[in-house]
Amino acid sequence: MLEERMRRWRHVFKLDPNRPISDEALAAVAESGTDAVIIGGTDGITYENTRELWERVSRFPVPCVQEISSTDAVVPSCEGHLIPVVLNARETEWLGGAQHRAIKLFGDWIPWEQIAVLGYVVLNPDSKVARLTRSRTELQPADMTAYIRLAERLFRLPAAYVEYSGTYGEPAMVEAARRGKKDVQLFYGGGISTQEQAETMARLADTVVVGNLIYENLEQALQTVRWVKEPSGGKSTQT
Amino acid sequence: MLEERMRRWRHVFKLDPNRPISDEALAAVAESGTDAVIIGGTDGITYENTRELWERVSRFPVPCVQEISSTDAVVPSCEGHLIPVVLNARETEWLGGAQHRAIKLFGDWIPWEQIAVLGYVVLNPDSKVARLTRSRTELQPADMTAYIRLAERLFRLPAAYVEYSGTYGEPAMVEAARRGKKDVQLFYGGGISTQEQAETMARLADTVVVGNLIYENLEQALQTVRWVKEPSGGKSTQT
Repeated sequence: MLEERMRRWRHVFKLDPNRPISDEALAAVAESGTDAVIIGGTDGITYENTRELWERVSRFPVPCVQEISSTDAVVPSCEGHLIPVVLNARETEWLGGAQHRAIKLFGDWIPWEQIAVLGYVVLNPDSKVARLTRSRTELQPADMTAYIRLAERLFRLPAAYVEYSGTYGEPAMVEAARRGKKDVQLFYGGGISTQEQAETMARLADTVVVGNLIYENLEQALQTVRWVKEPSGGKSTQT
Repeated sequence: MLEERMRRWRHVFKLDPNRPISDEALAAVAESGTDAVIIGGTDGITYENTRELWERVSRFPVPCVQEISSTDAVVPSCEGHLIPVVLNARETEWLGGAQHRAIKLFGDWIPWEQIAVLGYVVLNPDSKVARLTRSRTELQPADMTAYIRLAERLFRLPAAYVEYSGTYGEPAMVEAARRGKKDVQLFYGGGISTQEQAETMARLADTVVVGNLIYENLEQALQTVRWVKEPSGGKSTQT
């Protein structure tokens, strides 16, 4: 089951089918020691660019799953699919609406054991995903704690995702998320570029996702694997 | 756990704190052989009227749980609480919004093992609940099947509720709901008054809820217990 395999992820790279990446960079990402590669993004995602990126990644042994943002772009050959729901969205479209249409469309064909739902809490008001989903981003720590409980206790999602996409988040908010969790797998994503940032979020979250940095500073991105998986134990230095 | 106890419910009466019921009628309901009494309603629900009704029902050995429609009206002494979410609502308020506020409010005090979530699909466009939640009631059977899968597979709710409140529903829609389910407990509620109606819905749903009929025709309401729990096996007669 994807959900059980996912539990072992400490560090994950997220590759965007809508952003070019060279073969060398892609090989470096795939062979970095990361626990998995997630293929997905917010806009410009098509079947063609997703399929192409998946084919390139699948030459490497690293686990590779697709995060579905549009039913048009589902690549069935991926060995697992993540389904996002946005817990703090203002529109039901992102909290069941789109997912309902997808379930209706694919019906009996859905291999449920290869699917895992990620319950996002979107926090950067300037991010594409926040604007698209009209998320309520002005949250207090107590709101965050309650969202994680909503995800785990009411909706029983396997994973919750504190999403600061594009900007480094407030550790206090991730701590508040941690307070709300019992068994749900807590993802953190957003703006990690230094060792201190990586180690801070690795202490608070179960799984740290690195995305943009791949495209901005590949060398640094590759180092996040070690920072997350082999923390220096407080001896981190700013890099 | 409420969720496990709930599995044994075949017939349930729903009592509305906002509607008067005599002591005799209440005793007849409580001693009818029904599997449980749910206390709840859509409007005019207060802590006072809920608490009062709960105290009256709790003198009888029948299991009695509260369905929460407002955080103001939560009666902690009830032995279980049902949390509704409306899967086909147009507003996130009914699909996480209100529940998030309640979780934030009650925080660490929530006895999760005594809580079960019901995922409603609201189908009668003229009902109070449909108007309140702005539900998408014009559904095809395939939509219904997909909603039940959404409830069970994505949100992992213990129970899904086909709600025709106030009117007798389409058996084809309940059949479509059944097609979508694997283990989720399927509730049917709405407009049952005859033996044939009770037996039809009892064949399709795991749990049949009788509410309005208590207030409209108590004798008939009491008979639904037998109709649901001891069906005549096709020899039902219109009553």
